[in-house]
Amino acid sequence: MTTADALFDRQLKALAMVFEDDIRPGANYELVVEHGGQAWVSGQIPRLQGQIVCTGRVGQDLTLEEARAGARVSTLRALAILRQQLGSLARVERILRVTVYVQSAADFTQQSEVADACSDILYSVFAPNGGHTRTSVGVYQLPKNAALEIDLVAAVRPA
Amino acid sequence: MTTADALFDRQLKALAMVFEDDIRPGANYELVVEHGGQAWVSGQIPRLQGQIVCTGRVGQDLTLEEARAGARVSTLRALAILRQQLGSLARVERILRVTVYVQSAADFTQQSEVADACSDILYSVFAPNGGHTRTSVGVYQLPKNAALEIDLVAAVRPA
Amino acid sequence: MTTADALFDRQLKALAMVFEDDIRPGANYELVVEHGGQAWVSGQIPRLQGQIVCTGRVGQDLTLEEARAGARVSTLRALAILRQQLGSLARVERILRVTVYVQSAADFTQQSEVADACSDILYSVFAPNGGHTRTSVGVYQLPKNAALEIDLVAAVRPA
Repeated sequence: MTTADALFDRQLKALAMVFEDDIRPGANYELVVEHGGQAWVSGQIPRLQGQIVCTGRVGQDLTLEEARAGARVSTLRALAILRQQLGSLARVERILRVTVYVQSAADFTQQSEVADACSDILYSVFAPNGGHTRTSVGVYQLPKNAALEIDLVAAVRPA
Repeated sequence: MTTADALFDRQLKALAMVFEDDIRPGANYELVVEHGGQAWVSGQIPRLQGQIVCTGRVGQDLTLEEARAGARVSTLRALAILRQQLGSLARVERILRVTVYVQSAADFTQQSEVADACSDILYSVFAPNGGHTRTSVGVYQLPKNAALEIDLVAAVRPA
Repeated sequence: MTTADALFDRQLKALAMVFEDDIRPGANYELVVEHGGQAWVSGQIPRLQGQIVCTGRVGQDLTLEEARAGARVSTLRALAILRQQLGSLARVERILRVTVYVQSAADFTQQSEVADACSDILYSVFAPNGGHTRTSVGVYQLPKNAALEIDLVAAVRPA
């Protein structure tokens, strides 16, 4: 087992998180498209075993800390999907972009602090090359009333 | 005429949709930038012959079904733009990413169902390689009060 | 000094704008990731010398013209970051995508007009290759109550 995979499993264990054995898209799209040295991952809401575990408007229906917990689920789900597609997270060279969409209350301005929970995981799993660019914004609504959604683009090595 | 172009024309015909002969950007940007095997398409609102045909807040001013009709216009417009730029849709190898922004009512959570109308077209036109990643979010406002906006990134073959 | 760098400095001077000598990310992410001929730049709010200079909801707390001034700060900041990373803006071949997120009032629909201020700068600095694709949307909230946020992806030449 490679380092990134081992670090990923450690994160899952620390957070007592178990994803489906075979993660499937919720509708007619692909979880990942790999092409030309890049892997694009579809937007992930905080879903575990078919259950959305973090819903509502952050700063109103749930706290920053609860949103950060949801961001960890979305991030690890995106990585679980990458591993499922690539065979191993060792194939990830760099995370090029993470976009974090936070379903926000009208006066909630801590989208960056929600996104930090995502970034922390990326740095841990892909150390020492976990550096990534990031955009975080506060949206009005998300599919299935999810509190947040995260998508990413990775640079990957050939299999 | 190649298959993807023929399938695209079939979609246009089925929906009785006709785009301008020479689609131009609404302001000072490009409709497509092609570089390094990728074609990036600017965000498209549901515009036909200069007319925006789907406006308002989905789940309040218009129904899911009306938003899905608008998503078909935006998607086919993005593909019309790609064909105009590339010469033929046969040059599209894969759609890497589609992002669907839906101008949503405060309690509208079916952004994925709007985006499905976009995905259905991509699968039809680029069969059997129509698979793509997708992110759909609910935003607060869109240019010109459009009900939705769709952008995409495609992997393309050399001319 | 290359043309793009000179044109960039001219813009900074015309707007009397000075960025930090060493721009650093606000949290645990990277300002730029360069890989495979692309440079991805993190979302930039209108920040000058550590100060956010354009906050509030456009169309309610501030005018279109004020938002356009903020868009110039975010755009030039993104370019300052690119220059810091690449050594010179002459290494930029094309801007592939700009995404402009505008924190909007419920009835503000001129996100494109805000984004035009960004596009004007890109055309000026990278003439005659300033063409770029663009998506502009109206979001509900942004980090630190910023009025807008801009991220971009550039195609770059080897150093």
